[in-house]
Amino acid sequence: MRVDGRQPNETRTITIERNYIKHAEGSVLISVGDTKVICTATVEDKVPPFLRNSGTGWITAEYGMLPRATGTRNQRESSRGKVGGRTMEIQRLIGRALRAIVDLKALGEKTLWLDCDVIQADGGTRTASITGAFVALADALHKQVEKGSLSSLPITDFLAAVSVGMVGDQAVLDLNYHEDSAANVDMNIVMTGAGRFVELQGTGEEATFSMDELHKMLELGKIGSEKWIALQKEVLGEQITNLIAKNAMQNA
Amino acid sequence: MRVDGRQPNETRTITIERNYIKHAEGSVLISVGDTKVICTATVEDKVPPFLRNSGTGWITAEYGMLPRATGTRNQRESSRGKVGGRTMEIQRLIGRALRAIVDLKALGEKTLWLDCDVIQADGGTRTASITGAFVALADALHKQVEKGSLSSLPITDFLAAVSVGMVGDQAVLDLNYHEDSAANVDMNIVMTGAGRFVELQGTGEEATFSMDELHKMLELGKIGSEKWIALQKEVLGEQITNLIAKNAMQNA
Amino acid sequence: MRVDGRQPNETRTITIERNYIKHAEGSVLISVGDTKVICTATVEDKVPPFLRNSGTGWITAEYGMLPRATGTRNQRESSRGKVGGRTMEIQRLIGRALRAIVDLKALGEKTLWLDCDVIQADGGTRTASITGAFVALADALHKQVEKGSLSSLPITDFLAAVSVGMVGDQAVLDLNYHEDSAANVDMNIVMTGAGRFVELQGTGEEATFSMDELHKMLELGKIGSEKWIALQKEVLGEQITNLIAKNAMQNA
Amino acid sequence: MRVDGRQPNETRTITIERNYIKHAEGSVLISVGDTKVICTATVEDKVPPFLRNSGTGWITAEYGMLPRATGTRNQRESSRGKVGGRTMEIQRLIGRALRAIVDLKALGEKTLWLDCDVIQADGGTRTASITGAFVALADALHKQVEKGSLSSLPITDFLAAVSVGMVGDQAVLDLNYHEDSAANVDMNIVMTGAGRFVELQGTGEEATFSMDELHKMLELGKIGSEKWIALQKEVLGEQITNLIAKNAMQNA
Amino acid sequence: MRVDGRQPNETRTITIERNYIKHAEGSVLISVGDTKVICTATVEDKVPPFLRNSGTGWITAEYGMLPRATGTRNQRESSRGKVGGRTMEIQRLIGRALRAIVDLKALGEKTLWLDCDVIQADGGTRTASITGAFVALADALHKQVEKGSLSSLPITDFLAAVSVGMVGDQAVLDLNYHEDSAANVDMNIVMTGAGRFVELQGTGEEATFSMDELHKMLELGKIGSEKWIALQKEVLGEQITNLIAKNAMQNA
Amino acid sequence: MRVDGRQPNETRTITIERNYIKHAEGSVLISVGDTKVICTATVEDKVPPFLRNSGTGWITAEYGMLPRATGTRNQRESSRGKVGGRTMEIQRLIGRALRAIVDLKALGEKTLWLDCDVIQADGGTRTASITGAFVALADALHKQVEKGSLSSLPITDFLAAVSVGMVGDQAVLDLNYHEDSAANVDMNIVMTGAGRFVELQGTGEEATFSMDELHKMLELGKIGSEKWIALQKEVLGEQITNLIAKNAMQNA
Repeated sequence: MRVDGRQPNETRTITIERNYIKHAEGSVLISVGDTKVICTATVEDKVPPFLRNSGTGWITAEYGMLPRATGTRNQRESSRGKVGGRTMEIQRLIGRALRAIVDLKALGEKTLWLDCDVIQADGGTRTASITGAFVALADALHKQVEKGSLSSLPITDFLAAVSVGMVGDQAVLDLNYHEDSAANVDMNIVMTGAGRFVELQGTGEEATFSMDELHKMLELGKIGSEKWIALQKEVLGEQITNLIAKNAMQNA
Repeated sequence: MRVDGRQPNETRTITIERNYIKHAEGSVLISVGDTKVICTATVEDKVPPFLRNSGTGWITAEYGMLPRATGTRNQRESSRGKVGGRTMEIQRLIGRALRAIVDLKALGEKTLWLDCDVIQADGGTRTASITGAFVALADALHKQVEKGSLSSLPITDFLAAVSVGMVGDQAVLDLNYHEDSAANVDMNIVMTGAGRFVELQGTGEEATFSMDELHKMLELGKIGSEKWIALQKEVLGEQITNLIAKNAMQNA
Repeated sequence: MRVDGRQPNETRTITIERNYIKHAEGSVLISVGDTKVICTATVEDKVPPFLRNSGTGWITAEYGMLPRATGTRNQRESSRGKVGGRTMEIQRLIGRALRAIVDLKALGEKTLWLDCDVIQADGGTRTASITGAFVALADALHKQVEKGSLSSLPITDFLAAVSVGMVGDQAVLDLNYHEDSAANVDMNIVMTGAGRFVELQGTGEEATFSMDELHKMLELGKIGSEKWIALQKEVLGEQITNLIAKNAMQNA
Repeated sequence: MRVDGRQPNETRTITIERNYIKHAEGSVLISVGDTKVICTATVEDKVPPFLRNSGTGWITAEYGMLPRATGTRNQRESSRGKVGGRTMEIQRLIGRALRAIVDLKALGEKTLWLDCDVIQADGGTRTASITGAFVALADALHKQVEKGSLSSLPITDFLAAVSVGMVGDQAVLDLNYHEDSAANVDMNIVMTGAGRFVELQGTGEEATFSMDELHKMLELGKIGSEKWIALQKEVLGEQITNLIAKNAMQNA
Repeated sequence: MRVDGRQPNETRTITIERNYIKHAEGSVLISVGDTKVICTATVEDKVPPFLRNSGTGWITAEYGMLPRATGTRNQRESSRGKVGGRTMEIQRLIGRALRAIVDLKALGEKTLWLDCDVIQADGGTRTASITGAFVALADALHKQVEKGSLSSLPITDFLAAVSVGMVGDQAVLDLNYHEDSAANVDMNIVMTGAGRFVELQGTGEEATFSMDELHKMLELGKIGSEKWIALQKEVLGEQITNLIAKNAMQNA
Repeated sequence: MRVDGRQPNETRTITIERNYIKHAEGSVLISVGDTKVICTATVEDKVPPFLRNSGTGWITAEYGMLPRATGTRNQRESSRGKVGGRTMEIQRLIGRALRAIVDLKALGEKTLWLDCDVIQADGGTRTASITGAFVALADALHKQVEKGSLSSLPITDFLAAVSVGMVGDQAVLDLNYHEDSAANVDMNIVMTGAGRFVELQGTGEEATFSMDELHKMLELGKIGSEKWIALQKEVLGEQITNLIAKNAMQNA
């Protein structure tokens, strides 16, 4: 039994509130247990220099945390005058993950900005960010289809991310902050609706892990991502879900 | 009649949700029309160098805006590597305003950090920040009294801020973004429960204003701040309200 | 009686030395008591991106202080690698103030840079900067008229700034550093030749002020700005003074 | 057959030159094909603030690349005024990897700085850095034992890192720059002498991968890391190798 | 004949106004032709970390230029967020030069800050800075003797700096901006009252120079520095001059 | 006799390894005693803004030091977020020195980047950098001639740099770190094959020097630079040497 009463293969309660910020083309408030992240998607009609005149689009992400999202106050990165290594690592991960399920060629010379801002943190902020950002992105791109600036939805599959880890000898799914601090191994898994891996980042925290432990964690990752993708479908509704599902089938 | 149907002397709908972030000593989500700000108060048991061994406390504020709080996406100040002039100006104002109604001597060598983060902007973010931060601060300080690290609540009066301005020839109260863009004169007024001024910042936007116009705006400021202080009292509840009211009476 | 023997409604001795720096299109050394500021005006034949192809000009200001302008040495902002909040606030104020009395449309796509550098500080550096910068600006713009790059002088009125404050119960005009440190309320007033307000920034320093005190301070502000505008006229000479006065009358 | 004639399960030629920089406590020049990295280890008799008075040591890494290590010149991060996201990610990985095989408690309040500077790049710079840094670290720590500032060698196992990937449908080991650019999936594997994982970072580059492909890559990772650990043993010589091997056996 | 009518071995008119800034321990306005520099000396009762508990003092310099000191406006280094290479080079030169004629041991654990701020530039700003800073330094140190915080004046000799150069085939002394732009060789010479070199920095500007040309320039340097040291003596007055002269004789 | 057994007029052993980095247009590893510097030359087909459409090329240099090039570890300038004064000074010197022996007009609108990175330091890193950079530059420019993007080699003479100094009363050539620390006077001399000066930077380190001492140092500088230019010729081979020699003769 885990500290909050969950089974090892159980995720925390997750909710996704769509259209959370009125100005953004897509936006959600995602809550995974006590972790809460605002994800917005912005469509910009230009691309970074390395893609100009390539006919190809780009997706980039930025991640932030309010100073008091955590138990003790964090200094703002704007006050420190630079973005820290952890933030960089996370925002690079989010961007990479979402680029894997968008047809950038079909997107054309547009940039999608995904902003994930943690307003309350309790473990798993990067996986919540990816899972929420997917919904914001789907909404923003669907809006482009509706207003005619894209001819079809260029999303090739669903995408969710979960954390798994080894706490003592036990593989567990969706660690909260308390578990994360105690874990020997921490792994983030990003998977598609088709059950393929997009990212796999496993880290021994002053520890190591075996092939056997890896398998136990991968299994939990599958359970978690399937569950969260099911929620994404429910939240996005039948129309958008069907469009993505059709694309995914054609890619299979 | 104004763009959103209000009378000149009417504020927008305002709500203050207390205890919005579980980790912070005090926190609110304040909504003024479509402007939404998360305000948190953090108590730190040390003071900046210039106050060490003075027996006196300090209050400082930081202000931020999520990139997509606005109609078009703003670059993060952390990415730009520096805090902009507008942000600096606002956070200095918030800190100064709240220092005016706290007995820093009675606070002792503690620092109160007020973080005001705009998650959705529609004009009046600095006045919403001050008005919300007051409630977060009251909660954080009251918690210190409850746990015995302060012997009494060192708040000397209520405090709220409203914006007023001249739109055409009309003085109006609590401008939304649309009105703010069209205004010739923009004034922020910070007032105490006793109706005294803490800050008065009036600015002609490539324009000027007369003594008469000043008076019309000050009158509206009084109406607005009284209304919002009434809400603060309601939200904070009888116990805390009475403690502050008693202090205010003794100061009068 | 004040610390330096002045009456409450008396300003310090003020001198403005025109054409102080040979390279600049306009430049003065303004001395207000022991406060000395070099103000230069530079005309640049382009505008910031947000004004390109708008036919409209821009005025922007920068403010600095030599390290030893003050009683103890200040670290240079260039060494610290960033411009501080106080500097930002002041330079934004100076720019805004001067934009209020220039017809930016008539200026055309030019930028006026006003640099105010305090070489010796004794209180009131921001008001001295604005008052001096007006003269530098007038000279720089008049030079554009003389050389034919402007068809008429686009200055719509005179402009000066003074500080007022409450020292104890006494409203006083043009505070020196000693008074400024002791003041409960500090207010900067920027006024036109026509006696209209451009900026009003009143701040209780861990204190508050009443409507009555506000009025006393505004009255002193009027006295001070009128006196300093009179000096500007004397220094600029009849020709330029008449051009501005004529514009001001047409605007009234 | 691969572009440089290797079999899929073959690494490039690797050499490790010990004691490459005379000033450092440990240093190597590691060459993996045309990739060349100077790794130095520095022992410092203090720890970062969060470990003070904990009795525990720390290991941290920094990574750099000379401007012309690559085909086109890279701007220096010092000139740009900040460390980029890729650099941050890599140096965090190197530090984490090496902390996994050092008994930080036994190290005591010392910090080990590992500096990995790429002087010529041809793919796999982060895995070469980790593999080389291990040897520099072993030398630096052994020197502490020899001079009596450590009572025993606190290294708990050997450690090497290799890259694997999917190029087309083929899983390949130790990708050079050309292969890396063409790969769909890129995975970095850090393993101990005991064959346990320390880090696993697999990334679909605008692509995804299956469980089956994951297994093929992990298998190659094992082959590669075993081969490079064999070289580390040869280079370090019998005495140090035996000390580490004995520690590893005790940990098993 | 030179562009301004001077002979090759003639300097421009030089004036040094002592006690120019009321707050500083020593300060001058030095004018060399149209080049004007404010030099202040600040005494601080601590030393940089590398000298703590050494009993030895330190002298450091900072150099700046107002934006409109030059023909076209320079961006402020504070706005750019960093100090440029030219500024660094000059301030390191000024500091080094003055350390050569102060007995840092006798100074004790004090730091002397020399701030040289160019308010108008017309060539030779670094040599004017050194020459003026010497006077500010002498005043600041003499004040320490007078108030008893130094037992004797720790200045070992006079010090001045001049620029020389090759304009065409002609060696010339004290180049103005016009000459400096046209010169093939530019040399800055810092000399003591005893005629010894402290610094010699000769640079071919996309050009080279011969031993013979070097000698001609050194000769002019001697003439110039002697002349300016004579002025320093006159400005400082008999008492301080005699104290320094006595020290210089003892060192000879 | 010197600390390492050399005569006063003897340089350390110097080697220059050409084509050290495979990607660069020109590159060397230069070793002067224990000082080792990697110098690369990069040719870029554009020029800085101030030279656009001038038909003229540019040469610029950057200098760096690996953190453990020195006895104690130096913090990276990228981590500190800025380039230090010493680095700036050195890289400006390297760039200036090499511009003196290249016909920038003949180079056309190209920029040559010289990167000098010290991997091991033992005194004289800036002179080693210049001497090595010359060879890298010659190779890079000769490659342009060979591939037809330059019609002839635009190098007007050979160029080398040596350090000289006064250690006690003795003038010595090519100081190592130990001597450099003990020297009263430190001078860097950059000379051409024709024996003309390009740069002369002599500095008393809290000391001064006489005309006589200057002459002794200049004499040693001539010996050293002649010796190192002889090595450059040997390393570059007959063909390139003859091309440069021919140019030098025409310039004489």
